[in-house]
Amino acid sequence: MHKYSIGVDFGTLSGRAVIVDLTTGEEVAVAVHEYSHGVMDNKLPDGTSLGVDWALQHPGDYLDVFRITIPQVLKESGVNPDQVVGVGVDFTACTMLPVTPEGVPLCFLEKYRSRPNAWVKLWKHHAAQEEANRLNMIAEERGERFLKRYGGKISSEWMIPKIWQTLNEDPVIYDAAARFIEAADWVIWQLTGRETRNTCTAGYKAIWHKHHGYPSKDFFRALHPKMEDLVDKKLSLELLPAGTRAGVITRAASEMTGLDEGTAVAVANVDAHVSIPAVGITSPGKMLAIIGTSTCHMILGTTEIEVPGMCGVVEDGIIEGFFGYEAGQSCVGDHFQWFAENCTPAEYRNQAIAQGIDIHALLTARAASLKPGESGLVALDWWNGNRSVLVDVDLTGMIAGLTLATKPEEIYRALIEATAYGTRMIIETFEEHGVPVNEFYAAGGIAEKNPFMMQIYADIINREIKISGSPQAPALGSAMFAAVAAGKRSGGFDTIREAAVTMAKVKDQTYLPSEENRKIYDKLYAEYRILYDYFGRGANDVMKRLKLIRKEVRG
Amino acid sequence: MHKYSIGVDFGTLSGRAVIVDLTTGEEVAVAVHEYSHGVMDNKLPDGTSLGVDWALQHPGDYLDVFRITIPQVLKESGVNPDQVVGVGVDFTACTMLPVTPEGVPLCFLEKYRSRPNAWVKLWKHHAAQEEANRLNMIAEERGERFLKRYGGKISSEWMIPKIWQTLNEDPVIYDAAARFIEAADWVIWQLTGRETRNTCTAGYKAIWHKHHGYPSKDFFRALHPKMEDLVDKKLSLELLPAGTRAGVITRAASEMTGLDEGTAVAVANVDAHVSIPAVGITSPGKMLAIIGTSTCHMILGTTEIEVPGMCGVVEDGIIEGFFGYEAGQSCVGDHFQWFAENCTPAEYRNQAIAQGIDIHALLTARAASLKPGESGLVALDWWNGNRSVLVDVDLTGMIAGLTLATKPEEIYRALIEATAYGTRMIIETFEEHGVPVNEFYAAGGIAEKNPFMMQIYADIINREIKISGSPQAPALGSAMFAAVAAGKRSGGFDTIREAAVTMAKVKDQTYLPSEENRKIYDKLYAEYRILYDYFGRGANDVMKRLKLIRKEVRG
Repeated sequence: MHKYSIGVDFGTLSGRAVIVDLTTGEEVAVAVHEYSHGVMDNKLPDGTSLGVDWALQHPGDYLDVFRITIPQVLKESGVNPDQVVGVGVDFTACTMLPVTPEGVPLCFLEKYRSRPNAWVKLWKHHAAQEEANRLNMIAEERGERFLKRYGGKISSEWMIPKIWQTLNEDPVIYDAAARFIEAADWVIWQLTGRETRNTCTAGYKAIWHKHHGYPSKDFFRALHPKMEDLVDKKLSLELLPAGTRAGVITRAASEMTGLDEGTAVAVANVDAHVSIPAVGITSPGKMLAIIGTSTCHMILGTTEIEVPGMCGVVEDGIIEGFFGYEAGQSCVGDHFQWFAENCTPAEYRNQAIAQGIDIHALLTARAASLKPGESGLVALDWWNGNRSVLVDVDLTGMIAGLTLATKPEEIYRALIEATAYGTRMIIETFEEHGVPVNEFYAAGGIAEKNPFMMQIYADIINREIKISGSPQAPALGSAMFAAVAAGKRSGGFDTIREAAVTMAKVKDQTYLPSEENRKIYDKLYAEYRILYDYFGRGANDVMKRLKLIRKEVRG
Repeated sequence: MHKYSIGVDFGTLSGRAVIVDLTTGEEVAVAVHEYSHGVMDNKLPDGTSLGVDWALQHPGDYLDVFRITIPQVLKESGVNPDQVVGVGVDFTACTMLPVTPEGVPLCFLEKYRSRPNAWVKLWKHHAAQEEANRLNMIAEERGERFLKRYGGKISSEWMIPKIWQTLNEDPVIYDAAARFIEAADWVIWQLTGRETRNTCTAGYKAIWHKHHGYPSKDFFRALHPKMEDLVDKKLSLELLPAGTRAGVITRAASEMTGLDEGTAVAVANVDAHVSIPAVGITSPGKMLAIIGTSTCHMILGTTEIEVPGMCGVVEDGIIEGFFGYEAGQSCVGDHFQWFAENCTPAEYRNQAIAQGIDIHALLTARAASLKPGESGLVALDWWNGNRSVLVDVDLTGMIAGLTLATKPEEIYRALIEATAYGTRMIIETFEEHGVPVNEFYAAGGIAEKNPFMMQIYADIINREIKISGSPQAPALGSAMFAAVAAGKRSGGFDTIREAAVTMAKVKDQTYLPSEENRKIYDKLYAEYRILYDYFGRGANDVMKRLKLIRKEVRG
């Protein structure tokens, strides 16, 4: 009798469950549930208004995902609950909330439900920017070494700025919170009845280090006297790597999900990072890029090296026993969307309508008829700043080589190429600092749906590109860790490496670099690098000065 | 009884006559005639095909302008021919043709009418580029000093490359040509019955210098042995400055135009340069910019100075007794047209249609609501290379400061600002080399019709801008020189300065720089200059390398 595991992936707008056959690796059924409350960026359910840059969620929506999608995949697959050896989850991060000692979200309590800080702060909640700025300043003044592990900056999206915002704006909630916890860990708590924390979110989002722990009490006191004991009192010192068993399904969770009591539950994970084993990566030298509106790059290493401009390096952060490195490009698909909305002439729009295709398909078809270098354009892909390797939000976009003969599809292609040059720059920076990148994998919407762009990436980074074989790589990854949490004796696997042999998937078709194109792109990339260094490393800070002027003028 | 003079302006597609009251300066009547043959860039009237980059005209069309427009302005104004003291013309340049000893265009002769080189080569005929390149190479090798007077390069649009092309492609026509002559001088010949040549076209377009004459026989022999005697045999050594009397209306010309035999005829002039007195400029320190698809800048000086990157300096070239300097920007209105055609979203196009305005009016209205510096953008206005002050056709456009929030109207405004920075760079270069620019005048389509842009220019160059008061400044300028050719005794004027007092016109409304805007633009211009030097003066020749790559790829 075949055994199965279930992975549940919590995204920004919905959650999805997948049930996987542990003998064949087949994804037998999938179910999706959209959050009833979506992203709350305007007001709370009771009408309380939110400020600028807020983005909250309702923890009840997460429970609905369990309640609806797990029974559905069981039903659709015809799998009996006793055939399910384990369940795992992954989540957006840092998506966090304050809870009672029993794990009840403060926003569930009548007395706190009108207080914005009592709710779940979603990963893209940006209202803690001031706290992040002050935190970075204080850390720099104090010479905190942890800064280097994060490319020199802690993001406003991460755990500590979000907690500090709560304390600054609503100390009652800060005091009432027995724990501040990642939503990832909170949903696991709801399944197992006990609190666990995972090394992935702690390491990448809460400044935790396997050997040095969290920042010191002195540092937290420097932020705010009340935060001195934050770690001891409201976080957790016990952290478990991915694949570890967090516990088992409780009776209550069994009623909620239809799974058997006692079914193994894996510790939580992050959606991007959990995709690594889903494409079969369990050892160093293989980079995975998740390419969508932005891009997240991950790779494993055997030692802790400070690579300039990465987003973090965490021991056991992705796969136990390795150092997981993360880097990022803050604007990828967003570039093309901006271009389509702002720079596409009416004639093109009409042609797309006439052909019954969307504007991106039209621009892609036209751009595909061009040869590399034919446009004479080169761009810097900094429309939303540069995350890796310059870690500078104040950089902006640039394009050179424009003439009266320049066509929209040439600019569109130049933007695609610029994001690929940005990826190559990240790869080369890793390699120059002793983290080899021998293979390249891609997942995410653009990787799966845009062969034209993936071919350009292959030509520019001069590596074969393998594409994720599952349309729900994160959920598949979670199912893999669920099987590991269950272990071989229960019908799962003892290691993620073993799970990967059966369960991981890449598409048969890969993208091979064209030697002819690569030669031209090497020349163009050389130009990109010169401009990258000139505008990005201080030779001409015109972009920053323009931003300052802009700020002065706007007042 | 009032006296009158007539100016005839020969443009690219049509000719227009204006008759002006010499007592009041009033432009009493105007008449326009479109050339029947327009610009021939595809085939000759008999169907003979033309090559790439050819642009020819039919000299008969010019005579039609005389035949139709002069009688028409006489009729409309009710002026008696004996009240007309003189007639003057201006022309596009270098627009040239080969003629017989009697001044008959070779293309009028049956045996030559199928030979493209027998026709009028229009100013924008670009098929002599190879000859221009070789001429520049040879001149540089020989260390010819004249190159410096033209910013280092002789254009393919000018006289000598066009003649050389004739010799290379059709030596029969070269041999048959008794003269190669500017169309400007040729039409005067048709009015007076005798050949004259003007210092303006000779100086700016045929490498003539008041004291050094044309280039040496040695130089011409180095181009081609048959060209050694070009100057003596096919050009002219007698050149007259503007305002000089070329002759008087012959009986034949009287029949053609309805003017009295014996009416004074001024020597020919160039359309841009003749506009200088039309706005009242007759002394140094006052720059006139004619702003249209491209911009031509002219200013008078008292000494001959080699200013880097100008298009030419000619003694008596604009106003007798002064050195006339010319500079240029090769892409101004063309920028905005490119942007409107290639980068304007469908939504904007629809709004413009809904409001019943053209897309430029919509973009202008939106751009006008922005403050200087608010977009955070700065561009280099090199979409068609840079004429002054870098004289480099291989430079291309650049824009920096782009973000996901950048709107089309912000880019549109940045392009306008970039052309104004380019003008400021020209002004500063003149001033740094001892040619002061105390006042600024503007004429041409954009100057007259786009107050938003003119205000930006005023703010950026930090000078009051006076706008040409006549919608046909060149024709008015020609009428002024006609009055001078007639002289005071005949009811005209003895000097162009005197003519200007009565006849020159600027609009009452001028554009005054805003102190607040100027301060911001000073900062932005500083950024423009840094980028100008970086991309334009060899620090990073990325634009040229991109063009080379483009050429290699296109094959």
